[in-house]
Amino acid sequence: MNAEESDHIGKKFLEKTRPDQLSQPDQQKNVPPPPRSWDLTPKKTYDLPAPEEIDLPEAHLLETIDSRRSKRSFTEKPLSNEDLSILLYYTQGIQRELSGEISLRTVPSAGARHAFETMIYLDKATSLPRGIYHYQAEDHSLGLILSGNFQKEAVRAGLGQNHLAEAAAVFFWVADSYRMEWRYSERAFRYLHLDAGHVCQNLYLAAEALDAGVCAIAAYDDDYANKLLNLDGQDNFVIYMAALGFRKN
Amino acid sequence: MNAEESDHIGKKFLEKTRPDQLSQPDQQKNVPPPPRSWDLTPKKTYDLPAPEEIDLPEAHLLETIDSRRSKRSFTEKPLSNEDLSILLYYTQGIQRELSGEISLRTVPSAGARHAFETMIYLDKATSLPRGIYHYQAEDHSLGLILSGNFQKEAVRAGLGQNHLAEAAAVFFWVADSYRMEWRYSERAFRYLHLDAGHVCQNLYLAAEALDAGVCAIAAYDDDYANKLLNLDGQDNFVIYMAALGFRKN
Repeated sequence: MNAEESDHIGKKFLEKTRPDQLSQPDQQKNVPPPPRSWDLTPKKTYDLPAPEEIDLPEAHLLETIDSRRSKRSFTEKPLSNEDLSILLYYTQGIQRELSGEISLRTVPSAGARHAFETMIYLDKATSLPRGIYHYQAEDHSLGLILSGNFQKEAVRAGLGQNHLAEAAAVFFWVADSYRMEWRYSERAFRYLHLDAGHVCQNLYLAAEALDAGVCAIAAYDDDYANKLLNLDGQDNFVIYMAALGFRKN
Repeated sequence: MNAEESDHIGKKFLEKTRPDQLSQPDQQKNVPPPPRSWDLTPKKTYDLPAPEEIDLPEAHLLETIDSRRSKRSFTEKPLSNEDLSILLYYTQGIQRELSGEISLRTVPSAGARHAFETMIYLDKATSLPRGIYHYQAEDHSLGLILSGNFQKEAVRAGLGQNHLAEAAAVFFWVADSYRMEWRYSERAFRYLHLDAGHVCQNLYLAAEALDAGVCAIAAYDDDYANKLLNLDGQDNFVIYMAALGFRKN
Protein backbone atom coordinates (compact mmCIF):
# COMPACT_ATOMS: atom_id res chain seq x y z
CA MET A 1 0.00 0.00 0.00
CA ASN A 2 1.31 3.41 -0.86
CA ALA A 3 0.25 6.97 -1.53
CA GLU A 4 -0.54 6.30 -5.20
CA GLU A 5 -3.21 3.81 -4.23
CA SER A 6 -6.27 5.98 -4.82
CA ASP A 7 -5.09 6.55 -8.40
CA HIS A 8 -4.74 2.85 -9.08
CA ILE A 9 -7.33 2.11 -11.74
CA GLY A 10 -7.84 -1.48 -10.60
CA LYS A 11 -8.48 -0.52 -7.00
CA LYS A 12 -10.60 2.43 -8.03
CA PHE A 13 -12.70 0.16 -10.22
CA LEU A 14 -13.36 -2.15 -7.26
CA GLU A 15 -14.08 0.81 -4.98
CA LYS A 16 -16.54 2.41 -7.39
CA THR A 17 -18.40 -0.82 -8.11
CA ARG A 18 -19.27 -1.54 -4.48
CA PRO A 19 -22.99 -1.91 -3.88
CA ASP A 20 -23.41 1.54 -2.31
CA GLN A 21 -21.64 3.25 -5.24
CA LEU A 22 -23.78 2.02 -8.10
CA SER A 23 -26.15 3.96 -10.34
CA GLN A 24 -29.71 2.76 -10.45
CA PRO A 25 -29.86 0.15 -13.22
CA ASP A 26 -32.18 0.65 -16.16
CA GLN A 27 -34.11 -2.49 -15.25
CA GLN A 28 -35.27 -0.76 -12.07
CA LYS A 29 -36.40 2.24 -14.14
CA ASN A 30 -38.60 -0.09 -16.20
CA VAL A 31 -36.50 0.35 -19.32
CA PRO A 32 -37.14 -2.71 -21.52
CA PRO A 33 -34.23 -5.16 -21.80
CA PRO A 34 -32.02 -5.09 -24.90
CA PRO A 35 -32.13 -7.98 -27.40
CA ARG A 36 -30.39 -11.06 -26.06
CA SER A 37 -28.28 -11.67 -29.15
CA TRP A 38 -27.03 -10.05 -32.34
CA ASP A 39 -27.90 -10.45 -35.97
CA LEU A 40 -24.84 -9.38 -37.97
CA THR A 41 -26.42 -10.19 -41.36
CA PRO A 42 -23.67 -12.60 -42.43
CA LYS A 43 -22.61 -13.22 -46.02
CA LYS A 44 -23.57 -16.83 -45.57
CA THR A 45 -24.88 -19.03 -42.77
CA TYR A 46 -23.60 -22.54 -42.10
CA ASP A 47 -25.79 -24.75 -39.94
CA LEU A 48 -24.00 -26.85 -37.34
CA PRO A 49 -25.16 -30.34 -36.41
CA ALA A 50 -27.20 -30.37 -33.21
CA PRO A 51 -25.23 -31.73 -30.23
CA GLU A 52 -27.86 -34.43 -29.64
CA GLU A 53 -27.15 -35.79 -33.13
CA ILE A 54 -23.42 -36.12 -32.43
CA ASP A 55 -21.71 -39.13 -30.90
CA LEU A 56 -20.21 -37.26 -27.94
CA PRO A 57 -16.70 -38.17 -26.76
CA GLU A 58 -16.64 -40.07 -23.45
CA ALA A 59 -14.46 -37.75 -21.38
CA HIS A 60 -14.52 -38.18 -17.60
CA LEU A 61 -15.19 -34.87 -15.88
CA LEU A 62 -12.72 -34.92 -12.99
CA GLU A 63 -9.95 -36.64 -14.96
CA THR A 64 -10.33 -34.04 -17.69
CA ILE A 65 -10.07 -31.16 -15.22
CA ASP A 66 -6.95 -32.78 -13.77
CA SER A 67 -5.18 -33.48 -17.06
CA ARG A 68 -5.95 -30.18 -18.80
CA ARG A 69 -2.98 -27.98 -19.60
CA SER A 70 -2.77 -24.84 -21.70
CA LYS A 71 -1.41 -25.64 -25.17
CA ARG A 72 0.59 -23.34 -27.40
CA SER A 73 1.48 -25.70 -30.22
CA PHE A 74 -0.98 -27.24 -32.64
CA THR A 75 -1.13 -29.67 -35.56
CA GLU A 76 -2.52 -28.94 -39.02
CA LYS A 77 -5.63 -31.06 -38.39
CA PRO A 78 -8.81 -29.16 -39.27
CA LEU A 79 -11.97 -28.86 -37.20
CA SER A 80 -15.04 -30.75 -38.39
CA ASN A 81 -18.53 -29.30 -38.13
CA GLU A 82 -19.12 -31.74 -35.26
CA ASP A 83 -16.07 -30.38 -33.43
CA LEU A 84 -17.28 -26.82 -33.92
CA SER A 85 -20.75 -27.76 -32.78
CA ILE A 86 -19.38 -29.21 -29.54
CA LEU A 87 -17.00 -26.33 -28.86
CA LEU A 88 -19.68 -23.70 -29.40
CA TYR A 89 -22.59 -25.49 -27.77
CA TYR A 90 -20.69 -26.30 -24.56
CA THR A 91 -19.45 -22.74 -24.21
CA GLN A 92 -22.42 -20.61 -25.27
CA GLY A 93 -25.17 -22.90 -26.54
CA ILE A 94 -28.77 -21.97 -25.80
CA GLN A 95 -30.57 -24.79 -24.01
CA ARG A 96 -33.91 -23.34 -23.18
CA GLU A 97 -35.83 -20.09 -23.42
CA LEU A 98 -37.49 -18.56 -20.41
CA SER A 99 -39.92 -15.69 -20.59
CA GLY A 100 -38.92 -12.40 -22.18
CA GLU A 101 -35.38 -12.01 -23.34
CA ILE A 102 -33.98 -14.67 -20.98
CA SER A 103 -32.27 -17.86 -22.13
CA LEU A 104 -30.50 -20.63 -20.26
CA ARG A 105 -27.14 -21.62 -21.66
CA THR A 106 -24.50 -24.25 -20.95
CA VAL A 107 -22.61 -21.83 -18.74
CA PRO A 108 -23.74 -19.82 -15.73
CA SER A 109 -24.14 -16.05 -16.14
CA ALA A 110 -25.05 -13.36 -13.62
CA GLY A 111 -28.82 -12.93 -13.79
CA ALA A 112 -28.79 -15.16 -16.90
CA ARG A 113 -27.83 -12.02 -18.82
CA HIS A 114 -25.39 -13.90 -21.11
CA ALA A 115 -23.90 -10.68 -22.40
CA PHE A 116 -21.54 -12.25 -24.93
CA GLU A 117 -21.32 -12.91 -28.62
CA THR A 118 -18.78 -15.45 -29.83
CA MET A 119 -16.71 -14.55 -32.87
CA ILE A 120 -14.25 -17.07 -34.33
CA TYR A 121 -11.48 -16.80 -36.78
CA LEU A 122 -11.60 -20.22 -38.40
CA ASP A 123 -8.29 -21.09 -40.02
CA LYS A 124 -8.50 -24.87 -40.44
CA ALA A 125 -11.86 -26.53 -40.94
CA THR A 126 -12.93 -29.56 -42.93
CA SER A 127 -15.88 -27.95 -44.67
CA LEU A 128 -16.06 -24.25 -43.86
CA PRO A 129 -13.96 -21.66 -45.70
CA ARG A 130 -11.37 -19.62 -43.84
CA GLY A 131 -12.73 -16.49 -42.30
CA ILE A 132 -14.20 -14.69 -39.34
CA TYR A 133 -17.53 -16.06 -38.17
CA HIS A 134 -20.21 -15.11 -35.71
CA TYR A 135 -21.77 -17.88 -33.65
CA GLN A 136 -25.50 -17.48 -34.05
CA ALA A 137 -26.51 -19.15 -30.81
CA GLU A 138 -30.24 -18.77 -31.44
CA ASP A 139 -30.15 -21.34 -34.22
CA HIS A 140 -26.73 -22.91 -33.51
CA SER A 141 -25.12 -21.83 -36.75
CA LEU A 142 -22.05 -19.94 -37.91
CA GLY A 143 -22.47 -16.75 -39.92
CA LEU A 144 -19.55 -15.83 -42.18
CA ILE A 145 -18.65 -12.18 -41.61
CA LEU A 146 -15.27 -11.80 -43.34
CA SER A 147 -13.70 -14.31 -45.74
CA GLY A 148 -9.98 -14.86 -45.92
CA ASN A 149 -6.78 -15.64 -44.07
CA PHE A 150 -6.44 -13.62 -40.86
CA GLN A 151 -3.51 -15.44 -39.26
CA LYS A 152 -1.37 -12.31 -39.17
CA GLU A 153 -4.19 -10.25 -37.76
CA ALA A 154 -4.86 -12.86 -35.08
CA VAL A 155 -1.20 -12.81 -34.03
CA ARG A 156 -1.17 -9.03 -33.96
CA ALA A 157 -4.38 -8.93 -31.92
CA GLY A 158 -2.66 -11.27 -29.46
CA LEU A 159 0.38 -8.99 -29.14
CA GLY A 160 2.61 -11.28 -31.18
CA GLN A 161 1.80 -14.63 -29.62
CA ASN A 162 2.82 -16.80 -32.57
CA HIS A 163 0.81 -19.87 -31.66
CA LEU A 164 -2.22 -17.89 -32.83
CA ALA A 165 -0.95 -18.48 -36.39
CA GLU A 166 -0.93 -22.25 -35.80
CA ALA A 167 -4.39 -22.41 -34.25
CA ALA A 168 -7.25 -24.08 -36.09
CA ALA A 169 -9.57 -21.50 -34.54
CA VAL A 170 -9.20 -18.30 -32.57
CA PHE A 171 -12.09 -17.52 -30.25
CA PHE A 172 -12.97 -13.92 -29.49
CA TRP A 173 -15.58 -13.46 -26.78
CA VAL A 174 -17.24 -10.13 -27.33
CA ALA A 175 -19.03 -8.33 -24.51
CA ASP A 176 -22.26 -6.48 -25.26
CA SER A 177 -21.92 -4.62 -22.00
CA TYR A 178 -25.34 -2.98 -21.85
CA ARG A 179 -26.98 -6.38 -21.77
CA MET A 180 -25.38 -6.80 -18.32
CA GLU A 181 -25.46 -3.14 -17.25
CA TRP A 182 -29.20 -2.97 -17.86
CA ARG A 183 -29.58 -5.11 -14.72
CA TYR A 184 -26.42 -4.41 -12.72
CA SER A 185 -25.16 -0.93 -13.76
CA GLU A 186 -21.42 -0.37 -13.22
CA ARG A 187 -20.80 -3.62 -11.32
CA ALA A 188 -21.65 -5.35 -14.60
CA PHE A 189 -18.02 -4.87 -15.62
CA ARG A 190 -16.95 -7.26 -12.89
CA TYR A 191 -19.56 -9.80 -13.92
CA LEU A 192 -18.60 -9.66 -17.58
CA HIS A 193 -15.08 -10.79 -16.70
CA LEU A 194 -16.21 -13.44 -14.22
CA ASP A 195 -18.68 -14.81 -16.77
CA ALA A 196 -16.05 -14.83 -19.52
CA GLY A 197 -13.94 -16.98 -17.22
CA HIS A 198 -16.78 -19.51 -16.93
CA VAL A 199 -17.06 -19.68 -20.71
CA CYS A 200 -13.34 -20.09 -21.31
CA GLN A 201 -13.05 -22.84 -18.71
CA ASN A 202 -15.76 -24.76 -20.55
CA LEU A 203 -13.83 -24.29 -23.79
CA TYR A 204 -10.70 -25.70 -22.14
CA LEU A 205 -12.60 -28.76 -20.96
CA ALA A 206 -14.66 -29.38 -24.10
CA ALA A 207 -11.48 -29.10 -26.16
CA GLU A 208 -9.80 -31.75 -24.01
CA ALA A 209 -12.68 -34.10 -24.79
CA LEU A 210 -11.83 -33.70 -28.49
CA ASP A 211 -8.07 -34.17 -27.92
CA ALA A 212 -7.71 -30.53 -28.82
CA GLY A 213 -6.01 -27.90 -26.71
CA VAL A 214 -6.52 -24.28 -25.77
CA CYS A 215 -4.48 -21.30 -24.70
CA ALA A 216 -6.53 -18.51 -23.18
CA ILE A 217 -5.36 -15.02 -24.09
CA ALA A 218 -6.16 -12.01 -21.94
CA ALA A 219 -3.12 -10.00 -23.06
CA TYR A 220 -4.31 -8.58 -26.35
CA ASP A 221 -4.40 -5.29 -28.20
CA ASP A 222 -7.89 -4.10 -27.37
CA ASP A 223 -8.07 -1.44 -30.06
CA TYR A 224 -6.74 -3.65 -32.79
CA ALA A 225 -8.92 -6.63 -31.87
CA ASN A 226 -12.02 -4.46 -31.67
CA LYS A 227 -11.33 -2.90 -35.07
CA LEU A 228 -10.68 -6.31 -36.61
CA LEU A 229 -14.13 -7.42 -35.50
CA ASN A 230 -15.81 -4.09 -36.29
CA LEU A 231 -16.68 -3.39 -32.66
CA ASP A 232 -16.99 0.12 -31.28
CA GLY A 233 -14.73 -0.64 -28.29
CA GLN A 234 -17.13 1.15 -25.96
CA ASP A 235 -20.35 -0.80 -25.72
CA ASN A 236 -19.05 -3.83 -27.59
CA PHE A 237 -15.53 -5.10 -27.09
CA VAL A 238 -13.37 -8.19 -26.95
CA ILE A 239 -13.20 -9.35 -23.34
CA TYR A 240 -11.23 -12.60 -23.73
CA MET A 241 -9.58 -14.65 -26.48
CA ALA A 242 -8.42 -18.22 -26.91
CA ALA A 243 -6.33 -20.11 -29.44
CA LEU A 244 -7.52 -23.65 -30.13
CA GLY A 245 -6.15 -26.51 -32.18
CA PHE A 246 -5.40 -30.20 -32.09
CA ARG A 247 -2.63 -31.09 -29.69
CA LYS A 248 0.79 -32.22 -30.77
CA ASN A 249 1.13 -34.26 -27.59
CA MET B 1 -23.26 6.09 -25.85
CA ASN B 2 -23.68 9.43 -24.18
CA ALA B 3 -21.76 12.36 -22.74
CA GLU B 4 -21.25 10.67 -19.38
CA GLU B 5 -19.25 7.89 -20.97
CA SER B 6 -15.76 8.97 -19.94
CA ASP B 7 -16.87 9.01 -16.29
CA HIS B 8 -18.14 5.47 -16.47
CA ILE B 9 -15.89 3.51 -14.13
CA GLY B 10 -16.26 0.25 -16.07
CA LYS B 11 -15.31 1.83 -19.36
CA LYS B 12 -12.55 3.85 -17.75
CA PHE B 13 -11.16 0.65 -16.21
CA LEU B 14 -11.01 -0.99 -19.64
CA GLU B 15 -9.50 2.13 -21.19
CA LYS B 16 -6.78 2.47 -18.55
CA THR B 17 -5.83 -1.21 -18.67
CA ARG B 18 -5.06 -1.28 -22.38
CA PRO B 19 -1.54 -2.44 -23.17
CA ASP B 20 -0.22 1.06 -23.91
CA GLN B 21 -1.59 2.44 -20.62
CA LEU B 22 0.09 0.09 -18.19
CA SER B 23 2.82 0.81 -15.64
CA GLN B 24 5.95 -1.26 -15.91
CA PRO B 25 5.34 -4.39 -13.83
CA ASP B 26 7.63 -5.20 -10.91
CA GLN B 27 8.73 -8.41 -12.59
CA GLN B 28 10.39 -6.35 -15.31
CA LYS B 29 12.17 -4.30 -12.63
CA ASN B 30 13.64 -7.53 -11.25
CA VAL B 31 11.65 -7.29 -8.03
CA PRO B 32 11.42 -10.83 -6.62
CA PRO B 33 7.98 -12.47 -6.82
CA PRO B 34 5.76 -12.54 -3.72
CA PRO B 35 5.05 -15.86 -1.96
CA ARG B 36 2.64 -18.00 -3.91
CA SER B 37 0.34 -18.75 -0.96
CA TRP B 38 -0.56 -17.63 2.54
CA ASP B 39 0.07 -19.06 5.96
CA LEU B 40 -2.67 -17.73 8.23
CA THR B 41 -1.46 -19.67 11.31
CA PRO B 42 -4.74 -21.49 11.88
CA LYS B 43 -6.05 -22.62 15.27
CA LYS B 44 -6.02 -26.17 13.98
CA THR B 45 -5.22 -27.91 10.71
CA TYR B 46 -7.32 -30.73 9.27
CA ASP B 47 -5.70 -32.85 6.58
CA LEU B 48 -7.89 -33.78 3.64
CA PRO B 49 -7.63 -37.15 1.89
CA ALA B 50 -5.56 -36.96 -1.29
CA PRO B 51 -7.72 -37.04 -4.44
CA GLU B 52 -5.86 -40.11 -5.72
CA GLU B 53 -7.00 -42.02 -2.61
CA ILE B 54 -10.66 -41.23 -3.25
CA ASP B 55 -13.04 -43.26 -5.37
CA LEU B 56 -13.93 -40.46 -7.77
CA PRO B 57 -17.52 -40.15 -9.02
CA GLU B 58 -17.97 -41.15 -12.67
CA ALA B 59 -19.40 -37.95 -14.09
CA HIS B 60 -19.35 -37.52 -17.87
CA LEU B 61 -17.81 -34.18 -18.81
CA LEU B 62 -20.13 -32.94 -21.56
CA GLU B 63 -23.29 -34.30 -19.96
CA THR B 64 -22.35 -32.58 -16.72
CA ILE B 65 -21.80 -29.25 -18.45
CA ASP B 66 -25.18 -29.66 -20.13
CA SER B 67 -27.16 -30.61 -17.04
CA ARG B 68 -25.62 -28.10 -14.61
CA ARG B 69 -27.97 -25.47 -13.25
CA SER B 70 -27.43 -22.93 -10.47
CA LYS B 71 -29.06 -24.15 -7.24
CA ARG B 72 -30.46 -21.98 -4.48
CA SER B 73 -32.02 -24.62 -2.25
CA PHE B 74 -30.10 -27.26 -0.34
CA THR B 75 -30.68 -30.25 1.94
CA GLU B 76 -29.25 -30.70 5.44
CA LYS B 77 -26.75 -33.31 4.24
CA PRO B 78 -23.22 -32.55 5.44
CA LEU B 79 -20.03 -32.60 3.40
CA SER B 80 -17.57 -35.42 4.03
CA ASN B 81 -13.82 -34.88 4.01
CA GLU B 82 -13.78 -36.68 0.65
CA ASP B 83 -16.34 -34.21 -0.73
CA LEU B 84 -14.28 -31.27 0.52
CA SER B 85 -11.12 -32.77 -0.91
CA ILE B 86 -12.72 -33.05 -4.35
CA LEU B 87 -14.27 -29.58 -4.28
CA LEU B 88 -11.03 -27.92 -3.23
CA TYR B 89 -8.63 -29.96 -5.32
CA TYR B 90 -10.57 -29.51 -8.56
CA THR B 91 -10.87 -25.75 -8.06
CA GLN B 92 -7.48 -24.76 -6.63
CA GLY B 93 -5.45 -27.91 -6.00
CA ILE B 94 -1.71 -27.78 -6.62
CA GLN B 95 -0.63 -30.48 -9.05
CA ARG B 96 3.00 -29.75 -9.63
CA GLU B 97 5.69 -27.25 -8.71
CA LEU B 98 7.74 -25.56 -11.35
CA SER B 99 10.82 -23.53 -10.59
CA GLY B 100 10.65 -20.55 -8.26
CA GLU B 101 7.29 -19.53 -6.95
CA ILE B 102 5.34 -21.14 -9.79
CA SER B 103 2.85 -23.97 -9.35
CA LEU B 104 0.49 -25.69 -11.74
CA ARG B 105 -3.06 -26.08 -10.51
CA THR B 106 -6.26 -27.71 -11.73
CA VAL B 107 -7.41 -24.45 -13.27
CA PRO B 108 -5.71 -22.16 -15.77
CA SER B 109 -4.38 -18.83 -14.52
CA ALA B 110 -2.74 -15.95 -16.37
CA GLY B 111 1.01 -16.56 -16.23
CA ALA B 112 0.31 -19.36 -13.70
CA ARG B 113 0.13 -16.58 -11.11
CA HIS B 114 -2.76 -18.27 -9.23
CA ALA B 115 -3.44 -15.16 -7.20
CA PHE B 116 -6.19 -16.62 -5.01
CA GLU B 117 -6.67 -18.03 -1.57
CA THR B 118 -9.82 -20.04 -0.91
CA MET B 119 -11.69 -19.37 2.33
CA ILE B 120 -14.74 -21.44 3.24
CA TYR B 121 -17.44 -21.04 5.78
CA LEU B 122 -18.23 -24.66 6.55
CA ASP B 123 -21.70 -25.01 8.03
CA LYS B 124 -22.47 -28.71 7.58
CA ALA B 125 -19.66 -31.24 7.58
CA THR B 126 -19.45 -34.81 8.80
CA SER B 127 -16.24 -34.44 10.76
CA LEU B 128 -15.10 -30.82 10.81
CA PRO B 129 -16.52 -28.28 13.27
CA ARG B 130 -18.46 -25.28 12.01
CA GLY B 131 -16.30 -22.34 11.19
CA ILE B 132 -14.35 -20.35 8.67
CA TYR B 133 -11.43 -22.20 7.12
CA HIS B 134 -8.53 -21.42 4.86
CA TYR B 135 -7.66 -23.95 2.16
CA GLN B 136 -3.95 -24.63 2.54
CA ALA B 137 -3.32 -25.69 -1.03
CA GLU B 138 0.37 -26.42 -0.44
CA ASP B 139 -0.46 -29.47 1.70
CA HIS B 140 -4.14 -29.91 0.73
CA SER B 141 -5.51 -29.22 4.19
CA LEU B 142 -8.04 -26.92 5.83
CA GLY B 143 -6.91 -24.50 8.51
CA LEU B 144 -9.55 -23.43 11.01
CA ILE B 145 -9.48 -19.64 11.32
CA LEU B 146 -12.70 -18.81 13.19
CA SER B 147 -14.93 -21.33 15.00
CA GLY B 148 -18.68 -20.92 15.16
CA ASN B 149 -21.90 -20.43 13.26
CA PHE B 150 -21.61 -17.71 10.61
CA GLN B 151 -24.88 -18.32 8.74
CA LYS B 152 -26.15 -14.81 9.43
CA GLU B 153 -22.85 -13.27 8.44
CA ALA B 154 -22.78 -15.26 5.21
CA VAL B 155 -26.28 -14.06 4.32
CA ARG B 156 -25.34 -10.48 5.11
CA ALA B 157 -22.15 -10.74 3.05
CA GLY B 158 -24.35 -11.93 0.17
CA LEU B 159 -26.69 -8.94 0.48
CA GLY B 160 -29.48 -11.00 2.00
CA GLN B 161 -29.50 -14.01 -0.31
CA ASN B 162 -31.13 -16.45 2.10
CA HIS B 163 -29.94 -19.65 0.46
CA LEU B 164 -26.54 -18.82 1.95
CA ALA B 165 -28.01 -19.87 5.32
CA GLU B 166 -28.98 -23.27 3.88
CA ALA B 167 -25.63 -23.94 2.23
CA ALA B 168 -23.35 -26.66 3.55
CA ALA B 169 -20.40 -24.47 2.57
CA VAL B 170 -19.89 -20.92 1.40
CA PHE B 171 -16.82 -20.39 -0.77
CA PHE B 172 -15.03 -17.05 -0.71
CA TRP B 173 -12.32 -16.65 -3.31
CA VAL B 174 -9.87 -14.08 -2.07
CA ALA B 175 -7.61 -12.20 -4.44
CA ASP B 176 -4.05 -11.45 -3.40
CA SER B 177 -3.80 -8.86 -6.13
CA TYR B 178 -0.09 -8.15 -6.00
CA ARG B 179 0.65 -11.75 -6.90
CA MET B 180 -0.90 -10.94 -10.30
CA GLU B 181 0.14 -7.28 -10.51
CA TRP B 182 3.78 -8.23 -10.00
CA ARG B 183 3.69 -9.59 -13.55
CA TYR B 184 0.87 -7.68 -15.23
CA SER B 185 0.51 -4.34 -13.39
CA GLU B 186 -2.94 -2.74 -13.68
CA ARG B 187 -4.31 -5.19 -16.25
CA ALA B 188 -4.02 -7.78 -13.48
CA PHE B 189 -7.43 -6.64 -12.27
CA ARG B 190 -9.00 -8.00 -15.44
CA TYR B 191 -7.15 -11.29 -15.11
CA LEU B 192 -8.15 -11.75 -11.48
CA HIS B 193 -11.81 -11.70 -12.49
CA LEU B 194 -11.32 -13.92 -15.55
CA ASP B 195 -9.36 -16.42 -13.45
CA ALA B 196 -11.99 -16.40 -10.70
CA GLY B 197 -14.51 -17.36 -13.37
CA HIS B 198 -12.40 -20.38 -14.32
CA VAL B 199 -12.28 -21.48 -10.69
CA CYS B 200 -15.99 -21.06 -10.10
CA GLN B 201 -16.90 -22.98 -13.23
CA ASN B 202 -14.82 -25.90 -11.96
CA LEU B 203 -16.67 -25.71 -8.64
CA TYR B 204 -20.00 -25.86 -10.48
CA LEU B 205 -18.90 -28.94 -12.39
CA ALA B 206 -17.15 -30.77 -9.54
CA ALA B 207 -20.23 -30.17 -7.37
CA GLU B 208 -22.46 -31.74 -10.03
CA ALA B 209 -20.29 -34.86 -9.90
CA LEU B 210 -21.13 -35.13 -6.16
CA ASP B 211 -24.86 -34.47 -6.72
CA ALA B 212 -24.32 -31.17 -5.00
CA GLY B 213 -25.24 -27.77 -6.40
CA VAL B 214 -23.79 -24.28 -6.51
CA CYS B 215 -24.98 -20.73 -6.80
CA ALA B 216 -22.23 -18.28 -7.70
CA ILE B 217 -22.52 -14.91 -5.98
CA ALA B 218 -20.92 -11.81 -7.41
CA ALA B 219 -23.39 -9.39 -5.77
CA TYR B 220 -21.97 -9.12 -2.28
CA ASP B 221 -21.11 -6.47 0.28
CA ASP B 222 -17.39 -6.04 -0.36
CA ASP B 223 -16.63 -4.19 2.86
CA TYR B 224 -18.56 -6.57 5.05
CA ALA B 225 -17.18 -9.73 3.40
CA ASN B 226 -13.63 -8.41 3.62
CA LYS B 227 -14.00 -7.55 7.31
CA LEU B 228 -15.53 -10.95 8.04
CA LEU B 229 -12.45 -12.61 6.59
CA ASN B 230 -10.00 -10.10 8.08
CA LEU B 231 -8.88 -8.82 4.67
CA ASP B 232 -7.65 -5.28 4.13
CA GLY B 233 -9.92 -4.74 1.12
CA GLN B 234 -7.08 -3.14 -0.81
CA ASP B 235 -4.45 -5.74 -1.59
CA ASN B 236 -6.53 -8.68 -0.43
CA PHE B 237 -10.25 -8.86 -1.07
CA VAL B 238 -13.13 -11.18 -1.87
CA ILE B 239 -13.47 -11.41 -5.65
CA TYR B 240 -16.21 -14.05 -5.95
CA MET B 241 -18.41 -16.19 -3.71
CA ALA B 242 -20.46 -19.34 -4.07
CA ALA B 243 -23.03 -21.16 -1.97
CA LEU B 244 -22.80 -24.95 -2.15
CA GLY B 245 -24.91 -27.76 -0.77
CA PHE B 246 -26.57 -31.03 -1.68
CA ARG B 247 -29.41 -30.61 -4.14
CA LYS B 248 -33.03 -31.04 -3.23
CA ASN B 249 -33.81 -32.16 -6.79
